[in-house]
Amino acid sequence: MSFKVGTPKKNLMLFSGRAHPELAEEVAKHLNVSITPQSAYDFANGEIFVRFEESVRGCDAFVMQSATAPINQWIMEQLLMVDALKRASAKRITVIMPFYPYARQDKKHKGREPISARLIADLFKVAGADRIMTVDLHTAQIQGFFDGPVDHLFAQNTLARYIKDNYPTDNIVVVSPDAGRTKLAEKWADDLGGVPIAFIHKTRDPLRPNEVVANRVVGEVEDKLCVVIDDMVDTGGTIAKAVRQLLDEGASDVVMAATHGVLSGPARERLQGSGAREVIFTNTLPIPDDKRYPGMTVLSIAPLLARAIQQVFEDGSVTSLFDGDA
Amino acid sequence: MSFKVGTPKKNLMLFSGRAHPELAEEVAKHLNVSITPQSAYDFANGEIFVRFEESVRGCDAFVMQSATAPINQWIMEQLLMVDALKRASAKRITVIMPFYPYARQDKKHKGREPISARLIADLFKVAGADRIMTVDLHTAQIQGFFDGPVDHLFAQNTLARYIKDNYPTDNIVVVSPDAGRTKLAEKWADDLGGVPIAFIHKTRDPLRPNEVVANRVVGEVEDKLCVVIDDMVDTGGTIAKAVRQLLDEGASDVVMAATHGVLSGPARERLQGSGAREVIFTNTLPIPDDKRYPGMTVLSIAPLLARAIQQVFEDGSVTSLFDGDA
Amino acid sequence: MSFKVGTPKKNLMLFSGRAHPELAEEVAKHLNVSITPQSAYDFANGEIFVRFEESVRGCDAFVMQSATAPINQWIMEQLLMVDALKRASAKRITVIMPFYPYARQDKKHKGREPISARLIADLFKVAGADRIMTVDLHTAQIQGFFDGPVDHLFAQNTLARYIKDNYPTDNIVVVSPDAGRTKLAEKWADDLGGVPIAFIHKTRDPLRPNEVVANRVVGEVEDKLCVVIDDMVDTGGTIAKAVRQLLDEGASDVVMAATHGVLSGPARERLQGSGAREVIFTNTLPIPDDKRYPGMTVLSIAPLLARAIQQVFEDGSVTSLFDGDA
Amino acid sequence: MSFKVGTPKKNLMLFSGRAHPELAEEVAKHLNVSITPQSAYDFANGEIFVRFEESVRGCDAFVMQSATAPINQWIMEQLLMVDALKRASAKRITVIMPFYPYARQDKKHKGREPISARLIADLFKVAGADRIMTVDLHTAQIQGFFDGPVDHLFAQNTLARYIKDNYPTDNIVVVSPDAGRTKLAEKWADDLGGVPIAFIHKTRDPLRPNEVVANRVVGEVEDKLCVVIDDMVDTGGTIAKAVRQLLDEGASDVVMAATHGVLSGPARERLQGSGAREVIFTNTLPIPDDKRYPGMTVLSIAPLLARAIQQVFEDGSVTSLFDGDA
Amino acid sequence: MSFKVGTPKKNLMLFSGRAHPELAEEVAKHLNVSITPQSAYDFANGEIFVRFEESVRGCDAFVMQSATAPINQWIMEQLLMVDALKRASAKRITVIMPFYPYARQDKKHKGREPISARLIADLFKVAGADRIMTVDLHTAQIQGFFDGPVDHLFAQNTLARYIKDNYPTDNIVVVSPDAGRTKLAEKWADDLGGVPIAFIHKTRDPLRPNEVVANRVVGEVEDKLCVVIDDMVDTGGTIAKAVRQLLDEGASDVVMAATHGVLSGPARERLQGSGAREVIFTNTLPIPDDKRYPGMTVLSIAPLLARAIQQVFEDGSVTSLFDGDA
Amino acid sequence: MSFKVGTPKKNLMLFSGRAHPELAEEVAKHLNVSITPQSAYDFANGEIFVRFEESVRGCDAFVMQSATAPINQWIMEQLLMVDALKRASAKRITVIMPFYPYARQDKKHKGREPISARLIADLFKVAGADRIMTVDLHTAQIQGFFDGPVDHLFAQNTLARYIKDNYPTDNIVVVSPDAGRTKLAEKWADDLGGVPIAFIHKTRDPLRPNEVVANRVVGEVEDKLCVVIDDMVDTGGTIAKAVRQLLDEGASDVVMAATHGVLSGPARERLQGSGAREVIFTNTLPIPDDKRYPGMTVLSIAPLLARAIQQVFEDGSVTSLFDGDA
Repeated sequence: MSFKVGTPKKNLMLFSGRAHPELAEEVAKHLNVSITPQSAYDFANGEIFVRFEESVRGCDAFVMQSATAPINQWIMEQLLMVDALKRASAKRITVIMPFYPYARQDKKHKGREPISARLIADLFKVAGADRIMTVDLHTAQIQGFFDGPVDHLFAQNTLARYIKDNYPTDNIVVVSPDAGRTKLAEKWADDLGGVPIAFIHKTRDPLRPNEVVANRVVGEVEDKLCVVIDDMVDTGGTIAKAVRQLLDEGASDVVMAATHGVLSGPARERLQGSGAREVIFTNTLPIPDDKRYPGMTVLSIAPLLARAIQQVFEDGSVTSLFDGDA
Repeated sequence: MSFKVGTPKKNLMLFSGRAHPELAEEVAKHLNVSITPQSAYDFANGEIFVRFEESVRGCDAFVMQSATAPINQWIMEQLLMVDALKRASAKRITVIMPFYPYARQDKKHKGREPISARLIADLFKVAGADRIMTVDLHTAQIQGFFDGPVDHLFAQNTLARYIKDNYPTDNIVVVSPDAGRTKLAEKWADDLGGVPIAFIHKTRDPLRPNEVVANRVVGEVEDKLCVVIDDMVDTGGTIAKAVRQLLDEGASDVVMAATHGVLSGPARERLQGSGAREVIFTNTLPIPDDKRYPGMTVLSIAPLLARAIQQVFEDGSVTSLFDGDA
Repeated sequence: MSFKVGTPKKNLMLFSGRAHPELAEEVAKHLNVSITPQSAYDFANGEIFVRFEESVRGCDAFVMQSATAPINQWIMEQLLMVDALKRASAKRITVIMPFYPYARQDKKHKGREPISARLIADLFKVAGADRIMTVDLHTAQIQGFFDGPVDHLFAQNTLARYIKDNYPTDNIVVVSPDAGRTKLAEKWADDLGGVPIAFIHKTRDPLRPNEVVANRVVGEVEDKLCVVIDDMVDTGGTIAKAVRQLLDEGASDVVMAATHGVLSGPARERLQGSGAREVIFTNTLPIPDDKRYPGMTVLSIAPLLARAIQQVFEDGSVTSLFDGDA
Repeated sequence: MSFKVGTPKKNLMLFSGRAHPELAEEVAKHLNVSITPQSAYDFANGEIFVRFEESVRGCDAFVMQSATAPINQWIMEQLLMVDALKRASAKRITVIMPFYPYARQDKKHKGREPISARLIADLFKVAGADRIMTVDLHTAQIQGFFDGPVDHLFAQNTLARYIKDNYPTDNIVVVSPDAGRTKLAEKWADDLGGVPIAFIHKTRDPLRPNEVVANRVVGEVEDKLCVVIDDMVDTGGTIAKAVRQLLDEGASDVVMAATHGVLSGPARERLQGSGAREVIFTNTLPIPDDKRYPGMTVLSIAPLLARAIQQVFEDGSVTSLFDGDA
Repeated sequence: MSFKVGTPKKNLMLFSGRAHPELAEEVAKHLNVSITPQSAYDFANGEIFVRFEESVRGCDAFVMQSATAPINQWIMEQLLMVDALKRASAKRITVIMPFYPYARQDKKHKGREPISARLIADLFKVAGADRIMTVDLHTAQIQGFFDGPVDHLFAQNTLARYIKDNYPTDNIVVVSPDAGRTKLAEKWADDLGGVPIAFIHKTRDPLRPNEVVANRVVGEVEDKLCVVIDDMVDTGGTIAKAVRQLLDEGASDVVMAATHGVLSGPARERLQGSGAREVIFTNTLPIPDDKRYPGMTVLSIAPLLARAIQQVFEDGSVTSLFDGDA
Repeated sequence: MSFKVGTPKKNLMLFSGRAHPELAEEVAKHLNVSITPQSAYDFANGEIFVRFEESVRGCDAFVMQSATAPINQWIMEQLLMVDALKRASAKRITVIMPFYPYARQDKKHKGREPISARLIADLFKVAGADRIMTVDLHTAQIQGFFDGPVDHLFAQNTLARYIKDNYPTDNIVVVSPDAGRTKLAEKWADDLGGVPIAFIHKTRDPLRPNEVVANRVVGEVEDKLCVVIDDMVDTGGTIAKAVRQLLDEGASDVVMAATHGVLSGPARERLQGSGAREVIFTNTLPIPDDKRYPGMTVLSIAPLLARAIQQVFEDGSVTSLFDGDA
């Protein structure tokens, strides 16, 4: 004789690390759930302690953390949360990294380097992650670093809709700030209705190979509204230079749009002084007030994350959230 | 009491599948070794049988196969060779794939697709591969798909040297046939001494998203010698269209250089009829006589592979073979 | 606060590779489901592309493929389908291989060979298979090659019932065409009501060890209806020789029954010319019209597969489908 | 079209090895289930055979075995049961080891030893265990040896309640029989209402390091009721010596309480002759009649196990069973 | 600057469990090494403790154990030895199991059984074994259960040479005691110079399927010297019945040869009373004096093991030891 | 024909993260090697980049890092170094963590916590570590968290020798600051020649279980020189309280010795104001000048690490460095 239960319930539980609680709160509100209460603090020597205050047995766990500074601390906190969920019998663990950390080190540029983005995938796998959800990976190949499902969400729609709502599109040229983002510019150009694209060619002196000697704009930008796009802005140097050069070459105006506002060090000053009319980010990473200024617009990624979580939980299709692109 | 042997010898042994024995022979000659004799044949139903004719215990095995058509057959043969080496106690197994198969499927373009390039890495790992050696990956991130060392060799040097030896470089523009290869074009431009670059922008109709409606050349090509570059040429359609468009826009001449001559179906006809003055490949894949024509040049990759094998065997640095780039 | 759903539904979804769609259609009909639509085609260089046209999140996936020629192509297609299902969040993936490929290479016959049947199990495991369903393995030990559940179905019942329905059993002797199948003959003999068995002993010249010098029938066959049994018939050589020898030694008639009709190369001619009154197969592999002839009977395996799939899906017992034998 | 079932039922199934069927029966009764019938016997050479008599597909399996002598036999039987459940498609497998075997070898005491407790965890993992349930580990760190959830139950409550119900607590001192259990004594002291603790210090001669030369009681025991506590009692030597020494130093009376009554060899004689007024165990291990005597009390662990199983099955919190301690 | 050592020495170290030290001693003598001293004893509750008395860092370890009764005890001891070697930094660990335990459970005969032979391979793998060496597997497919090299040695040569040296071969028939060993009989027949073979057909009553109702000898045995062969003899029942039946059907004499003398329970009595002129085993398992009798011959397997160990150590070919059969 | 090299050299290469370069330098000097030069810096957003400046192919790599604040940063840096070494073909990677981070979280104290010390072992394993070397683990069981060799060195010898050289031992009592370290105190007592031990018993109010209400010294300390021992001192609170209480209870003097000087926050002030005559640490962690004061002695661990590295490299026995205790 065996023992049966009538109707197993599946629980969606949302967890948040300490890096960007505002985003988690916003997502929770969209989902109409509460963030699971937890203790999380640092020991005097910096070791992190986490403990969940409610039973998590059998739950469908979604663990949010935004990889902002101090970035290694927040990565470790998320790893510890995943380990705790695994040992406390969560049924499935989805790691939500709105900004995938170490994504720029996705290959060996020279010999004897790590492939840090693969290492990140392996660390979360070994800790117990079943699935990863992330937004606008630096390169889409990073999906393949994780041995399991990756929900790769796109914020470009959100950003492009904002551009279309706020700027005339008939005179736009999409500009990639370097050769490596030209493909992304092409996707933006399609999204904005088939506008032209340009990019900035960095030349190097063969005798001093790591040094950029000149930037050339390739493509027509004169008298155009240039929309400079990128996946992330860190210190803002490349973008600021691009804006200035575009204005120098006769662009009528420049707007910048990027998903991830890393905004380290002098980023705010550089952006603010670059001459760009507006810079637009999402809040995948926290952007505190002292990094903001009037010409900066921050769009919320929470609605997109909330819809994706709900689809994953209900085994619906997430592809519809991706503009046919995932 | 224990038993000691004076001086363990390490054996380099070279193995070749049946896809491209000429390349393996050439590599063997450079290394001054013989290819290990093996039986390899197909059963009547297509199942492959392999058996090595000499003991391989303790050897440092290098297993070459070129992923040409019928590509799945040759992948399976190489997997079977690796399995046999593992079970016969080879000390270390390096899989040499001069052309990494399924590299174009290195991410999900839409939902519910495989990431085939990652699958390939996993298949070789589970069969017993310790290391992969390959040439000019479609995207460098594929290195991160394998959980172990990947020796990523570059043929660009070989190709660029040929260009420099055979064409004047003062009027060259490097052209990427699509937006995704612009970064590669930038590396070529540096290699050719700081020449300008251009690329071809494909626009899509927003109502018919998978259909290219127009190609626009972005960058200056008039009266220039255009060097169209790519990692591989499959059916030649993109390249042939690019060549014609460049000539239409006033290019003085067009030369095409790519590492991997896949050359399926109508490729030869298209290249030959494209108007390109010369097309240049390496022999990472076999290019039989009926795919060749007078305007096609095929450079040998064997010296590069042989040097890399020797470095790996002797634990030397392979980076020096990579132009500081791996 | 957490989020609950009332009654999770489990979805059975059936997928079919391109090798033997007729069998999949037949199974689908028995299950009253449709095969999930998918795109699957070959790139010009032979690389396969697959994409499912419907969401597969959370489904209980059954992936059918028949390992017929070109066998390595179809294996790779099935691996890619499994990888795509894993990355698209299928809940459980059952690989259905009605004919297990490379089953004959289930051990090293000599040194330095692969154990290909184990490699096949490992490849599917690493791609993401949770379970394998197969019919009449060449040796039952292959079940142990997979690290997970294997549903091993038996077609012998289907075949033996046909014999009993169509032939008098009072004068039958079951004949194994070689020493290695004698155990199988014994099981058939029990099934046919305790009839006698015989087998054909192949002798080898000690000086030429790989060459069979003579076949001797061991057991009584004169004036008997010989039922020659085997798991598979590939080129038909062994079977045709066995039939002739049995007739030579006075068998009154010969019937041949085997689960898998591989039927490579000259198989049809050999069987048709062998003197056997009837040869009987199942359709685990496609048997196209040009391999058939009036004396060949092909029984459908679809009902057995459909019942097994339903049992697996509903967590019922599959053992009842196996005549107490699995 | 896909196929749906309305309300999947989850089955709890309880399995028992042959080592301690009485405990399993008692647990089954508390859960109101039957133990799944199985065949289990030894071949003539000692190899064990197991087979379940009912379908186990999709069940939530709980596999009980008590690691009593012959201990390696029962470990292997439990491993075989797990392997059979895995291959027969149990949905989840919880290994219940009321006494974790080889727990004393939880570290290398000197070089070149196994860490046997880790090996045990690895063996069950590779056989297919998803989770381990156990009682009063020798050291709590053993939880970390298993890569998955470990439900670590505590019998101390059961034992301490018995002490409080049967002895006055105002004159108690809790005594650890060696330095390594002092922390455990502290937890008991808290449980009994803040009573004092003592322990026995074993000194070694620096010239003969493995030999204890003297035992010193550290702490006050004169005219006290000493409660000597431990996790397990094997041959009883340490405990018997401790009891005698406490009496020698003026203890008014001595009671001994331990979770696991291993009771090998001379244990009963030693305990009976030690002068302890009462010794108290639980039945995590079978204690047959010939190891019992009037002064020995055996409390049942079955209610605790049954509650924990039910919580795990229903994804409830097990922490409440652990006195806030797991 | 880095640090180099001139000529690293590789150490062969031989280890022996407590099951069959005589065989290990014999092998050690052939190799001219000593068995590494170790402590190994049982705790009072049957837990095993092992510790090596010498450093094993970097050694090439060969760990011998014979799976005789109490078989599970000796398996566990060998697993613990492997774990200790792994943690003490042995460079490579070869597990030598002259008789592979649980080899008869190499498939599921019915549903819900373990595949114990696979489990054994997995247990040794997870403990740290790099390679397995064994003699005359029950079925050769077991090689494929281990994910790594398996050296499968054959004792048949040793046994057949003895037959040829001691009996005239011109009137021999090789007899398989059941249908499943007919293939093995065929190999013996070749080895003895092309002699005929026979086997014993067991018929079952369809109404009582697990019961053998009659044995029929298939093949000619009258006036022949029957050599009954098998891989192992456990209780001797099958063999004794076979011998009597052969004598009943007119065999002139019967000799029995098998690699593994398990010889449980009544085996000696049965063999001695069977009427066989001689029974021949090897010492893969210990055969103590009380299981021997004048008509039993035990040949030593030590020379074969010693040669194989030496070949493995020196990375030579082991195939030559296998009669071209591995 | 194959290719041989005469005498492969093995290279010891030493690597150091940025946390405690002084210790690495000191070890390098003892070994007479140089630390391998590397680039290591932080990107603006805190992501770490590392690259080795010399080829590391085939080397025996020893990677040192001390887990001091910011601790998660240094853990990640060491993981990235291991990943880079793995991908650059180091032959063997030994991770040296003089202080094992997160060692205090070696079990779940309550439910729903991580076992962080196990997670650390898993992270290094997946990154590519073959072996771990560490000093004085918080609990020795942590050795079992890593699936591979762990060299567990003991600094107690170094510390105890210092005590014996600087203090009379005839009046010493070794004091454990809490019940959990009593076993360690016993080992110290043996080392100092059989001196007595004591410990501090913390009692809790049953109604407020997490609050210590009183500390009782168990054991005789009056007029004794108390040597308070521990594995680490973090904020110094426990130790300072212990010192004061011992002085209150009449200790003639107090000396404190611990391996790891974590010394967070108010540690220096607390130690300095505690009344202890001297506090003694090793330099497993950096102790900068502003954490030191005249009564603090810091002994170097470098000679012990250097000897262990050399033994590992030369496959010698490390046990001799461990006082017979590992």
